[in-house]
Amino acid sequence: MRAIFFNGDLQYTTDYPDPVRQPGEALIRPHLVGICNTDLEITRGYMNFRGVLGHEFVGTVVASDDPSWQGKRVVGEINAACRRCPTCLRGDVSHCPQRTTLGIYRRDGAMADLFTLPEACLHEVPASVSDEAAVFTEPLAAALEIVEQSHIRPTERVAVVGDGKLGAMIVQVLRLTGCELTLIGRHPERWDVYRQQGITCVRSTDLPGTLFDVVVDCTGNPSGLNIARQIIRPRGRLILKSTFAAETQLNLSMVVVDEIQLIGSRCGPFAPALRLLERGLIATTPLISARYPLAEGLQAFAAAPGQLKVLLSV
Amino acid sequence: MRAIFFNGDLQYTTDYPDPVRQPGEALIRPHLVGICNTDLEITRGYMNFRGVLGHEFVGTVVASDDPSWQGKRVVGEINAACRRCPTCLRGDVSHCPQRTTLGIYRRDGAMADLFTLPEACLHEVPASVSDEAAVFTEPLAAALEIVEQSHIRPTERVAVVGDGKLGAMIVQVLRLTGCELTLIGRHPERWDVYRQQGITCVRSTDLPGTLFDVVVDCTGNPSGLNIARQIIRPRGRLILKSTFAAETQLNLSMVVVDEIQLIGSRCGPFAPALRLLERGLIATTPLISARYPLAEGLQAFAAAPGQLKVLLSV
Repeated sequence: MRAIFFNGDLQYTTDYPDPVRQPGEALIRPHLVGICNTDLEITRGYMNFRGVLGHEFVGTVVASDDPSWQGKRVVGEINAACRRCPTCLRGDVSHCPQRTTLGIYRRDGAMADLFTLPEACLHEVPASVSDEAAVFTEPLAAALEIVEQSHIRPTERVAVVGDGKLGAMIVQVLRLTGCELTLIGRHPERWDVYRQQGITCVRSTDLPGTLFDVVVDCTGNPSGLNIARQIIRPRGRLILKSTFAAETQLNLSMVVVDEIQLIGSRCGPFAPALRLLERGLIATTPLISARYPLAEGLQAFAAAPGQLKVLLSV
Repeated sequence: MRAIFFNGDLQYTTDYPDPVRQPGEALIRPHLVGICNTDLEITRGYMNFRGVLGHEFVGTVVASDDPSWQGKRVVGEINAACRRCPTCLRGDVSHCPQRTTLGIYRRDGAMADLFTLPEACLHEVPASVSDEAAVFTEPLAAALEIVEQSHIRPTERVAVVGDGKLGAMIVQVLRLTGCELTLIGRHPERWDVYRQQGITCVRSTDLPGTLFDVVVDCTGNPSGLNIARQIIRPRGRLILKSTFAAETQLNLSMVVVDEIQLIGSRCGPFAPALRLLERGLIATTPLISARYPLAEGLQAFAAAPGQLKVLLSV
């Protein structure tokens, strides 16, 4: 089958071996697959992953143990957990130590004609949610993990550092809380859609003097983290929402003296992400920068850095 | 001046004495005033209030100490606090023991040609928010108090009991969290707007068997509270969001055995309410049942029970 895979180099092939469906797994034909910053990091060595890339997808189930899944249009949680270990049994399946992760860790991803995922990871896409919206479910769920972990009050001042792909999801989730919301970024050409949504957008050099109750870093780089550190109030919450490729340092003395609460945040819940999409509360169309067929996946990866969402059509 | 006032009977007059502006207060000419269930309760004796009714308003400042308020279109928080006592100084101004409350307690309300309110209570209405939307700021703020007090997670199952005026605001705030949301009511003719927003609407007789993590009662009556009690899970949160006119009992043994958390909830924050209106996230037009001139205020009150929002144009 056709696939985009990484084995030290990013490659496109037409004869990747077909996936072998294991018990409890569904075989899925993807329609659209998004390129995420994590994919770009993997091509720079992150997780030391080898295999087919792609974890943001919408597709159709073509085979499954449970016949009710067959033919269903689905999105899927990316962590395939054992669902038997103590971590899974206390409900933390996305932290299962035996887990594989779609297109990221020990499991081939969705940038191919076919791939497999446990049926337990699947969510049916409501009919009113288009493929072009549904492909954002995974990053939207990751954004929702912030409000799953943390109580963001409507009266709080919240800043999001980073106006890239993930920042676009995060500000759109946080604006729904009613909080006073500032997006700090470097791409003013992207800000119209956010400003129309009532979000203040500024460059880091134009920050107001006042501090923020909550700061979300989604830059994944030391300069973004440095900005976050400077604008958080004493006793504020600093949410780390990004893949840090390099070893990044944070001054822990400042964390202690200012009683900062640091909150790491990764994968999130899919069901509410689909509910927000179904309710029409998240703008996705303006976030699609480009769309390539799978066969042009290498060009898509080359174009992706500095863009918002680049999609592959399978 | 003209006014709708209560002195044991609800009356309309054209010669109510003009308000006398105190230091720090603004004199306001209302454009629109909403009739709230609390107003209806007052006409049945609630708070033993005597004076001009009305606390949901949008209007224009015609006189103030601070000249920057003059001519501004405003809404206002209804609790006029001393801002000096220990309660105020710890930030709980809406609980000030010296407070007066607009149209509810020791302060004439907004159903008149003119009324006064401390400048500290005022919020300017953004130009993009119409009068017809801004008049909902006060009940919307009351709905936001729920998410100010409580962390409602996107993955939680939440039920709102009561599909009246306040329920309409509450479900629209809670849907923004992404939670699984069910409105329980008796008025299926009102449900189209909520169903279009992705909210499940059911009669209390058609409830699913599963229990809810969070239940909000906004019926203010014993039968609504009884439904709430039956559908909350052990360790769930039961939020009481209503004016109970009669003495209402709750079985506290069930609260202890099931470890229910009871949360009383009253007035809420105005700034985020205005932000949600400005962001276009709250539907208000479908909630307006009728509009009467001030001079027909008695007819408006007679028509209000069983309706959604009835407005008075001043």
